[in-house]
Amino acid sequence: MTKISNIKMLALFLAYSFFTVADLDASSKHSSQTKYISYSQIGNPADVLEVKTETTHVLSSGEVRVKVLAAPINPSDLYQISGNYGVDPVLPARPGSEGVGRVTEVSPEVKNLSVDQLVLLASGSTWAEEIVAPAAGFLPLPNLGPISAEIIEQLSMSAVNPLTALLMLTSYGDIQEGQWIVQSAANSAVGGYVIQLAKQRGIKTVNVVRRDGLADDLMSKGADVVLIDGPDLAAKIAEATDNAPIMLALDPVGGDTFGRLADSLGYGGTLVTYGGLSGKPGALNTGKVIFNDTRVRGFWLYKWYQIATMEEKQAAFGQVIPLIANGTLKANIDSRFSVDQIKQAVTRSWEGGRNGKVLIVPTSL
Amino acid sequence: MTKISNIKMLALFLAYSFFTVADLDASSKHSSQTKYISYSQIGNPADVLEVKTETTHVLSSGEVRVKVLAAPINPSDLYQISGNYGVDPVLPARPGSEGVGRVTEVSPEVKNLSVDQLVLLASGSTWAEEIVAPAAGFLPLPNLGPISAEIIEQLSMSAVNPLTALLMLTSYGDIQEGQWIVQSAANSAVGGYVIQLAKQRGIKTVNVVRRDGLADDLMSKGADVVLIDGPDLAAKIAEATDNAPIMLALDPVGGDTFGRLADSLGYGGTLVTYGGLSGKPGALNTGKVIFNDTRVRGFWLYKWYQIATMEEKQAAFGQVIPLIANGTLKANIDSRFSVDQIKQAVTRSWEGGRNGKVLIVPTSL
Repeated sequence: MTKISNIKMLALFLAYSFFTVADLDASSKHSSQTKYISYSQIGNPADVLEVKTETTHVLSSGEVRVKVLAAPINPSDLYQISGNYGVDPVLPARPGSEGVGRVTEVSPEVKNLSVDQLVLLASGSTWAEEIVAPAAGFLPLPNLGPISAEIIEQLSMSAVNPLTALLMLTSYGDIQEGQWIVQSAANSAVGGYVIQLAKQRGIKTVNVVRRDGLADDLMSKGADVVLIDGPDLAAKIAEATDNAPIMLALDPVGGDTFGRLADSLGYGGTLVTYGGLSGKPGALNTGKVIFNDTRVRGFWLYKWYQIATMEEKQAAFGQVIPLIANGTLKANIDSRFSVDQIKQAVTRSWEGGRNGKVLIVPTSL
Repeated sequence: MTKISNIKMLALFLAYSFFTVADLDASSKHSSQTKYISYSQIGNPADVLEVKTETTHVLSSGEVRVKVLAAPINPSDLYQISGNYGVDPVLPARPGSEGVGRVTEVSPEVKNLSVDQLVLLASGSTWAEEIVAPAAGFLPLPNLGPISAEIIEQLSMSAVNPLTALLMLTSYGDIQEGQWIVQSAANSAVGGYVIQLAKQRGIKTVNVVRRDGLADDLMSKGADVVLIDGPDLAAKIAEATDNAPIMLALDPVGGDTFGRLADSLGYGGTLVTYGGLSGKPGALNTGKVIFNDTRVRGFWLYKWYQIATMEEKQAAFGQVIPLIANGTLKANIDSRFSVDQIKQAVTRSWEGGRNGKVLIVPTSL
């Protein structure tokens, strides 16, 4: 795999920030200790991740110091640490691909960021108490007025899951208002964003989960139908949608679920895989693929960040950030851990039965 | 499934024939007995197919009588008889989707066919001693001069397998001279046509088979590499092609073979499924699909006949017929059976270890 840090993806984008820029602010001095997470070998995250301490250094020209407020643990982070991702990290590596922070110091050359400004963290290495990086690594958020801890946490998850949901919903044919889509692992963070973004567009969702007790939460997010996975899934989907021709299915599970979603598609429909939670190969009924003109594609956000134009990126962020800031678009949060508690945090984030994201919150918000 | 006879597909096309037409010829009388194959229930072909006899009837206006010279048994015929096809037959049905014959009588209204003319059979029901159908059901072949029994047999297989091979090779991205493709079941009839058509275009082929002893035949057809299927297939393909980025894989097998072919593709490559010989779901490594932007599509010739324009059909036939007529493009023939021997014929065509097509040859050529 290519030797590129996973989270460099946003940095490219943020070389050009698109929100109104703030005035230059005076910088202040730092010389305390700060903690961050690092790993120097590929392996089980709970084994290989280490809490390290470094002395804060004086800013170089063009650098900015940001206090990390919140940073999520995404499955893609764990896949990369464990060596199951499309690109391998350069070791030793500092994990964490997104988050939100507050500027605490800027070097005199920086014109678009000021102290106390809220920023998205796009330079990577976000599982840390603070980040020092060139200004291009931070995306200034629009002035949101007084902002709650809850919204700050939601904003920390802006760049990965909501964009994944938005792009999958809009990149494979033109799904119209009133049409149905189907997705598995609907209780995942991406699944929740898909429900909310589909609802916003008048697109109906069949949401497949693996256990009882999740329907109320999904319905409250805007789900139209919630079904438990099983061998008769395609038939249940057909019944629930009155045999509507479903043109888009989203699957991060693989195995039989992948095949059942494919079987539920209408003629010419697309199944998009974006994960392999079951650990099993997608089981595809090739007869259906042939006679029903089924198309299978994969979605990888990393690649999108590499190839999308600046306009496409601005359009995508422009759609999700305001919805997150006003509380329309949100994910459940399962638990919060400090940087010191990284092993508990990653262990929790791999456990079944969760119903929300695990966040690194360095200091109470 | 839609209630349309499988072999109606060609009839549409042949309402307009594209070869130079011949003069009107006088017709002659018939009143003998003729045999044909029929089935009145879906099931195992060797069980449900029946040999029937009918008295030849006087031609109606616009009809043509054709003596069947040769007609192949294609897997799609057997899938349809056994109820495993994308469209179900209207029962009772007369099977056989293609073949070649010689005109023995034309009704006075028919202007584009003459007695003794060689025609492709596009009206279906080709597993028979003779066919009576409207003129549009027969495609007059160009004047080929004296023609051998061998070429007649090859021409009987023009409309299904060679077109499948051609269209799969040309419909999923522009594969250039010098590039590699990979295919499984390379010793099938379609596989052989793929090798020959690829060779013609300077495209290199990796050919995957399930047993030893086939390489010489495939190499003689123009294969560049022949490999035996196995768990390390993708690695062997990478080695054999010096890690060339393979943009097209063709698979009629499914199961693990399907997944291995997908794994062997270069970034953005397409795996086309056109059958399910293994009887197992295609096992797709979803991680590869995501990180490698793999695309999966299905190819169904029946649908192509429905949606292709007349120009596309003419172009496709125009590419394969001359190559078959001059002996460049050909398939192995395993065995020949009379109409009476239909049960032996279909049984043989389902057996493993064959290395060629089974033909219905009503009378020795």
